[in-house]
Amino acid sequence: MKRVLFPGRFQPFHKGHYAALTQLLEEYDEVVVAIGSAQEGYTCRNPFTAGERWEMVYNVVKRNNLTGRVWMITVPDINMPLTWTAYTLSMAPRVDAVASGNPQTLYLFEWLGYPVKRIRLVEPSKYYGTRIRDLMIHGSDEWRELVPLEVAEYIDEIKGVERVRRLCLDEHTAH
Amino acid sequence: MKRVLFPGRFQPFHKGHYAALTQLLEEYDEVVVAIGSAQEGYTCRNPFTAGERWEMVYNVVKRNNLTGRVWMITVPDINMPLTWTAYTLSMAPRVDAVASGNPQTLYLFEWLGYPVKRIRLVEPSKYYGTRIRDLMIHGSDEWRELVPLEVAEYIDEIKGVERVRRLCLDEHTAH
Amino acid sequence: MKRVLFPGRFQPFHKGHYAALTQLLEEYDEVVVAIGSAQEGYTCRNPFTAGERWEMVYNVVKRNNLTGRVWMITVPDINMPLTWTAYTLSMAPRVDAVASGNPQTLYLFEWLGYPVKRIRLVEPSKYYGTRIRDLMIHGSDEWRELVPLEVAEYIDEIKGVERVRRLCLDEHTAH
Amino acid sequence: MKRVLFPGRFQPFHKGHYAALTQLLEEYDEVVVAIGSAQEGYTCRNPFTAGERWEMVYNVVKRNNLTGRVWMITVPDINMPLTWTAYTLSMAPRVDAVASGNPQTLYLFEWLGYPVKRIRLVEPSKYYGTRIRDLMIHGSDEWRELVPLEVAEYIDEIKGVERVRRLCLDEHTAH
Amino acid sequence: MKRVLFPGRFQPFHKGHYAALTQLLEEYDEVVVAIGSAQEGYTCRNPFTAGERWEMVYNVVKRNNLTGRVWMITVPDINMPLTWTAYTLSMAPRVDAVASGNPQTLYLFEWLGYPVKRIRLVEPSKYYGTRIRDLMIHGSDEWRELVPLEVAEYIDEIKGVERVRRLCLDEHTAH
Amino acid sequence: MKRVLFPGRFQPFHKGHYAALTQLLEEYDEVVVAIGSAQEGYTCRNPFTAGERWEMVYNVVKRNNLTGRVWMITVPDINMPLTWTAYTLSMAPRVDAVASGNPQTLYLFEWLGYPVKRIRLVEPSKYYGTRIRDLMIHGSDEWRELVPLEVAEYIDEIKGVERVRRLCLDEHTAH
Repeated sequence: MKRVLFPGRFQPFHKGHYAALTQLLEEYDEVVVAIGSAQEGYTCRNPFTAGERWEMVYNVVKRNNLTGRVWMITVPDINMPLTWTAYTLSMAPRVDAVASGNPQTLYLFEWLGYPVKRIRLVEPSKYYGTRIRDLMIHGSDEWRELVPLEVAEYIDEIKGVERVRRLCLDEHTAH
Repeated sequence: MKRVLFPGRFQPFHKGHYAALTQLLEEYDEVVVAIGSAQEGYTCRNPFTAGERWEMVYNVVKRNNLTGRVWMITVPDINMPLTWTAYTLSMAPRVDAVASGNPQTLYLFEWLGYPVKRIRLVEPSKYYGTRIRDLMIHGSDEWRELVPLEVAEYIDEIKGVERVRRLCLDEHTAH
Repeated sequence: MKRVLFPGRFQPFHKGHYAALTQLLEEYDEVVVAIGSAQEGYTCRNPFTAGERWEMVYNVVKRNNLTGRVWMITVPDINMPLTWTAYTLSMAPRVDAVASGNPQTLYLFEWLGYPVKRIRLVEPSKYYGTRIRDLMIHGSDEWRELVPLEVAEYIDEIKGVERVRRLCLDEHTAH
Repeated sequence: MKRVLFPGRFQPFHKGHYAALTQLLEEYDEVVVAIGSAQEGYTCRNPFTAGERWEMVYNVVKRNNLTGRVWMITVPDINMPLTWTAYTLSMAPRVDAVASGNPQTLYLFEWLGYPVKRIRLVEPSKYYGTRIRDLMIHGSDEWRELVPLEVAEYIDEIKGVERVRRLCLDEHTAH
Repeated sequence: MKRVLFPGRFQPFHKGHYAALTQLLEEYDEVVVAIGSAQEGYTCRNPFTAGERWEMVYNVVKRNNLTGRVWMITVPDINMPLTWTAYTLSMAPRVDAVASGNPQTLYLFEWLGYPVKRIRLVEPSKYYGTRIRDLMIHGSDEWRELVPLEVAEYIDEIKGVERVRRLCLDEHTAH
Repeated sequence: MKRVLFPGRFQPFHKGHYAALTQLLEEYDEVVVAIGSAQEGYTCRNPFTAGERWEMVYNVVKRNNLTGRVWMITVPDINMPLTWTAYTLSMAPRVDAVASGNPQTLYLFEWLGYPVKRIRLVEPSKYYGTRIRDLMIHGSDEWRELVPLEVAEYIDEIKGVERVRRLCLDEHTAH
């Protein structure tokens, strides 16, 4: 049985993440999604709580019949880059590798001497969190096409767009 | 759909925890096991890493056909009792209540105004972590009867008894 | 007896804060000023220590005969937005609500299910900390009109303008 | 105007603390009570939140006409003994000395080169927190004589004895 | 015997630092280099680990026959400016002064009432870390002239330029 | 060139540590002493600051002509056992192994996959910190024979015995 760790912030979980998940499931039996910056939520840059991001992955798993193949852990920040890797690994089940599309993340696990797998990102200049949140802020519905359907529905359910707008627009007007 | 949060240290996951899990699954559709003190491991009091405790629950889930009904999150300590509850809830999916057999845990969630469910512990003076670790230290095989079969197998696989003995006996002889 | 919590950074305490305080004292018997980011001081963005900000509020209280109606607590950061609210509440006496002009702060307390009161800010584009510190940096005396007289006197006493200039100008020249 | 800082845990605020406060008010115009371990609460050793301890001092102040002469700040732990002093001082208004009956506390402020004042403790083997909490646990009403009347009333109001018993007795029975 | 503390981030240790060291060794018998932000490494702004920065200073010491006159300590961040000074001093041997070219650093030690020594920076607009890292990013070899020879060799040995480029360029392209 | 890391608390640095150092210097060219729990000091269990422990090692180095072969780093606690190893390694120069007489320490570095060297402790039931501090507390001069001469002199110079007695005896009498 082969298992891989897939860390990220997932603000929100988008189609780029989903493509990576699919790609990893071709090679591994199980993927453990490590939801990072887990202590964050309700800020402009991290609008969704770890619990909400957990539910996004959960909905993706349920809808795509991945139950039992995709699991989640929650990993708060410790602000010590070289230490964060050991910290994350100690909270994860044994895995054969750590997968990421982020070269910095790969770099840190390599420093620790851990096997890594570089994910081929699908259209990285299209699918990424900052862009999705910016579209939400500016009132464009285009963000819906950048996340899986069940994530879009979930964001609607928790009134996520309104939250992102309120958090990010207030940042410039409130003192 | 009803969901409940079940926090604990699970050093190790024993039959008392399993009985609680079964009891909760009668009332709730899903249980989210919150593995606490997640930053701990390889100490006498917390010999198993969060990743290992995650695997114990995982094995219990797989063996008992609970996949999709039992999920896990990992929650490191923050050493602020009254704050730890909000911290834990922010990392969990939405739940209808928090369940525990530990009155202190229940107290803290009540302080926050959160619904709690007191678990009826099954033979609490028999099934508890400290006793299990003590049996391991003193070389008694009796601990095997106190944990689910798949947890005993897992502890054997990771040479857990040897580790507990080494960690706890050394504590008194090394300086 | 009705009591309200009024959190802020107060870098420095200005006339907008004072107007909010006056407004709250019309509705509540007591206001507890929670001085946030209390561990900060002597940086460009947070030039005043929590103790100095405490003295600013103290001077305002003494000069305006508010002794016994306005109290202070000091609350260091914990860098966990959703947890900071429970942390702050656990250090405050029991209050009927949390008041703020900052929508993000209100949002976080709402997340916790706590009653909040939105303060009507008086001329928010005129009275705010960043602007006051910028006026100090650029050598304009206009900042004096934006803070209560006793705060201006206090800032003079501790040579606050010189400090702000030194801290903020050095930020760009020292390496 | 002379001001002194009086740090302590105040679990609960007892007659020994009150005697110290009275003694300090003979020599100083104002006393700033620094409520330490402010992040604690609802544990056997620290049953009362910082907010509750703040209210105990508040009630003592109000009842004894000390409003305007006794103030409070809240100081969470940082678990760095030699650093905690600078941390505490940075959150306090300017004081002429730090007063304590605890030689360790005095030692730490002396290390920093700060003026300290050793409080003459009144019957220290009678009035101290651990003893008061032990009396509560063992069901003796004698604790009432060891705290100011208004603190006893406050503890009754928040059902403090029941809480201490529940927290401390459970510590030995729950796992 | 006179000793001075010389704190800095040293990302990397450059000729400006070396000139300061030389200047301090004229007045003091020993210099203790305090390597700050010691928990950092493998980020764009802090590419080198504390251990690597320790080795840079070590190489400078060995090559310039300063063994026994220059020593090192490692000091992680605590994100509490006014407290960081006492924290740093508690980890250093007794020194007669703290030396820095950074006015903010001097300010903080002055706040604590500690003797400070302002270093006359040699061409501060030429020798500073940000500029050196920028030259590395943009592929210019000019950085070599800004650091001591043995530091340049060390950076080559650990493939430091490649690392800086990878960490800083990726920051803009990865999500 | 072979280098080894030697972590410990060194409260105080005693003859057992010195014997280990000598033993390591037979096999390695350089030893890096990692002074752990570096944020501690002025408590009964950790009476000496990291700076003082640094000076103890420094004096041993100077007196025994080990300058240039023995170096020191300072490592504060992070209270995450499995993470502390990566944290410590990131602050140390590159080493060939980590040496310890403490099996728990060795265990943790093994978990990380790092080479370790088990030190043969010389009379571990005679030379250990707790015993030395106990002798100090009980007024016996026997502790002098358990530490290197230059450490005994240093402890006299900083009035260390008086401090240990004051810190440890007060712990039982102050509340």
